[in-house]
Amino acid sequence: MGGFFTGRTLADLGRDLRSGDASAAGLLAHVFASIDAEADAEADAELNAFVTLDREGAEAAAKWADQELASGIDRGPLHGVPVAVKDIIDVAGLPTGMGSAHFTGHVADADAACVTMLRDAGAVIVGKTGTHEFAYGGSGDVSVNGPVRNPHDRERMSGGSSSGSAVAVAAGMVPLALGTDTGGSVRIPAAFCGIAGFKPPYGVIPTDGVFPLSPTLDHVGVLAGSADGCRIAYHALVGPAEAVPSPVDESVPHGRVAWIEPESADPDVVRTVRALFPDAPAEPLDLFELRRIFRAIQDCEAYEIHAERVAEAPERYLPPTLERLEQAARTPGWRYIRAFRERDAFAQRVAGLLDRYDLLALPTMMMTAPKIGETEGPFGRHAPALVSLTCAWNVLGLPALSVPAGTVGGLPVGAQLVTRRGAESLLFDMAGRLPSLTG
Amino acid sequence: MGGFFTGRTLADLGRDLRSGDASAAGLLAHVFASIDAEADAEADAELNAFVTLDREGAEAAAKWADQELASGIDRGPLHGVPVAVKDIIDVAGLPTGMGSAHFTGHVADADAACVTMLRDAGAVIVGKTGTHEFAYGGSGDVSVNGPVRNPHDRERMSGGSSSGSAVAVAAGMVPLALGTDTGGSVRIPAAFCGIAGFKPPYGVIPTDGVFPLSPTLDHVGVLAGSADGCRIAYHALVGPAEAVPSPVDESVPHGRVAWIEPESADPDVVRTVRALFPDAPAEPLDLFELRRIFRAIQDCEAYEIHAERVAEAPERYLPPTLERLEQAARTPGWRYIRAFRERDAFAQRVAGLLDRYDLLALPTMMMTAPKIGETEGPFGRHAPALVSLTCAWNVLGLPALSVPAGTVGGLPVGAQLVTRRGAESLLFDMAGRLPSLTG
Repeated sequence: MGGFFTGRTLADLGRDLRSGDASAAGLLAHVFASIDAEADAEADAELNAFVTLDREGAEAAAKWADQELASGIDRGPLHGVPVAVKDIIDVAGLPTGMGSAHFTGHVADADAACVTMLRDAGAVIVGKTGTHEFAYGGSGDVSVNGPVRNPHDRERMSGGSSSGSAVAVAAGMVPLALGTDTGGSVRIPAAFCGIAGFKPPYGVIPTDGVFPLSPTLDHVGVLAGSADGCRIAYHALVGPAEAVPSPVDESVPHGRVAWIEPESADPDVVRTVRALFPDAPAEPLDLFELRRIFRAIQDCEAYEIHAERVAEAPERYLPPTLERLEQAARTPGWRYIRAFRERDAFAQRVAGLLDRYDLLALPTMMMTAPKIGETEGPFGRHAPALVSLTCAWNVLGLPALSVPAGTVGGLPVGAQLVTRRGAESLLFDMAGRLPSLTG
Repeated sequence: MGGFFTGRTLADLGRDLRSGDASAAGLLAHVFASIDAEADAEADAELNAFVTLDREGAEAAAKWADQELASGIDRGPLHGVPVAVKDIIDVAGLPTGMGSAHFTGHVADADAACVTMLRDAGAVIVGKTGTHEFAYGGSGDVSVNGPVRNPHDRERMSGGSSSGSAVAVAAGMVPLALGTDTGGSVRIPAAFCGIAGFKPPYGVIPTDGVFPLSPTLDHVGVLAGSADGCRIAYHALVGPAEAVPSPVDESVPHGRVAWIEPESADPDVVRTVRALFPDAPAEPLDLFELRRIFRAIQDCEAYEIHAERVAEAPERYLPPTLERLEQAARTPGWRYIRAFRERDAFAQRVAGLLDRYDLLALPTMMMTAPKIGETEGPFGRHAPALVSLTCAWNVLGLPALSVPAGTVGGLPVGAQLVTRRGAESLLFDMAGRLPSLTG
């Protein structure tokens, strides 16, 4: 399932671009070659990662990137690197489809702020990737563009909602992609597809030009083959915004890590991730309660954004999305207000934990990727289970990284690392030192 | 219906206290004499303004105030002045009953912040006044303590929720009272009872120690016989917090005033108030839309505060309050979020008006005081009509003053003045120059 970029890190690409062993135009040719090769797959087994390609725009950008590098202008580690962008993020002149019939034919006027940041860093935007309809779901198989398939098993869901971005990276079509993460939508598909996905602290990457799902919880994030790719992309995008973290205690193996034991998760998944942190003491945290808070906030805010569309053209939604919205419309306002009160209490509790530990570790997902369209059982309709371990960090606005942690039954499993706001470097440092990842 | 303090302004009392023509102890004796006289009224015609008296505490405070003044310590215009406090505001050592069986026997540990401010200003706290149950209503006739009656017609409602505070002032029992105002609860009973009531800009008087109804809309306010009494009390409480207002344009009669024409109001009430501002151009403002915003915010926030009480002991609420809460529980969260978005749009529109005018003028109420228990018709159950003209200024957080504007059918009518945050002095200046009030 590997493509050209599989196993090639952003650091490798940067070296090759500067040594002359690669050019932006050449890298771009590999992108389109791998996408074209995939398009030859049988129709009902296509990965379906991309919904729009911008061959002309990307070729012009790659040519420009090469000319700049040749003339001594170096914009840093993303200069000349091809990047895919989730289809709820505006790229000027390209359609933003939201995975929904509501936005068929809608073309963006201007770049989203995060796309401007990408372009300023010299990246080459190759096209738009498939999203769960309006990013309102974690399975990635509900979209007017059809399901995005998992490259590890094409009968299985990629996870979502940044489905296409994760699959484009996992299949080696691009080395880097932008996604969004409201309850786990970067980390879920990263974990299911065996790559790295990073959600920064709330607000660090602006969401202007990104279609909102739940403004209190929405984050822009990055997906790459490894944690180091996420680190490079994040730092290239935000510059010196990150605070200087307190250093990891080097006398303790892997820093001071607390293990958050998930309830009701697949024991094989838990065992696989726990093996990376054998000495981490377990600390209690009621993730299900945090998921309840998450749902109250997300559902009220999502419906507020969609109310007129639901009233005027409900038939344009796919049935699972419409059903979710109709349910969301009924969440009472007092629950929304209460959720913030409860969030504040949890934030204090977790701040206490992060005074005693550098990092919290837990699996990213309760399970490996379920089959596409699986609508019964614990991973079923509306799939609340999908966000069980990820949405807490959206509610709390804390930086969270999912990195590959091994496989269960041949399917990828992700380890999730969480830390204080401003200490993002600790996540990347720790990921680089995990035995299974460096071994 | 007049009592000792009727027609005696705070300025008069201050002069008498300093000239030796009056003492704090002497003023206090008049307070209790008028309350005791009222207690001789027939049981079903009692004004019912007070729910708790603190004879001992008040006498000690009055004695101390007299001693301070005698020894040259002068705390300013409230020094030695008797004040009544609404029964949702904590006074240390006294019951805070909220007008509800839920709080029978509940005694406050500490003074509310606004009570501390009163004491620091030398005021003498005489007791607690009746409130609509949990301040959740504008009629003043729903309380475990029974209805508070209008001194102008004891078969009529006082208005609420600061019912007892308004009636204690209107009946001349005290010269000044504290109330709270979430949708009009200071201005409504002030207008119905023929006195002045002032709601400061949002946040200027802290609400700590005040039982919340809707934290986004809750304000502490003051009630006095005249606008000048409100001015003196407000300045004594907040000190130099008020910004220096831009001066009224003296070349224009009564400054630059815009008239906000209320829809569906009693035409006699409108005519009476309009006569005070004959030259003010009418400006459109959709007060019913603002009332919808008000209801969405108030209901969600109120239910959030009461949810556990409703679940555990619904029978302790009076039926109208329980019914309102059960209805409030069903307000969807997306409406709450939308209300804030709409509020921001209105705030811009009204800021534009207040760039062109110094003041907005309109009636305080759509009607004169209805009969107690009147639960049918436009002034009926849940009485949304009661807050129609007042709640806009809670939503927008603007200072608003109700002053007596005459009578219709022998019942008082209030004129309401609204201005920019920080320009409160304009309200008091204008009120002092209104023809009917100075004439």
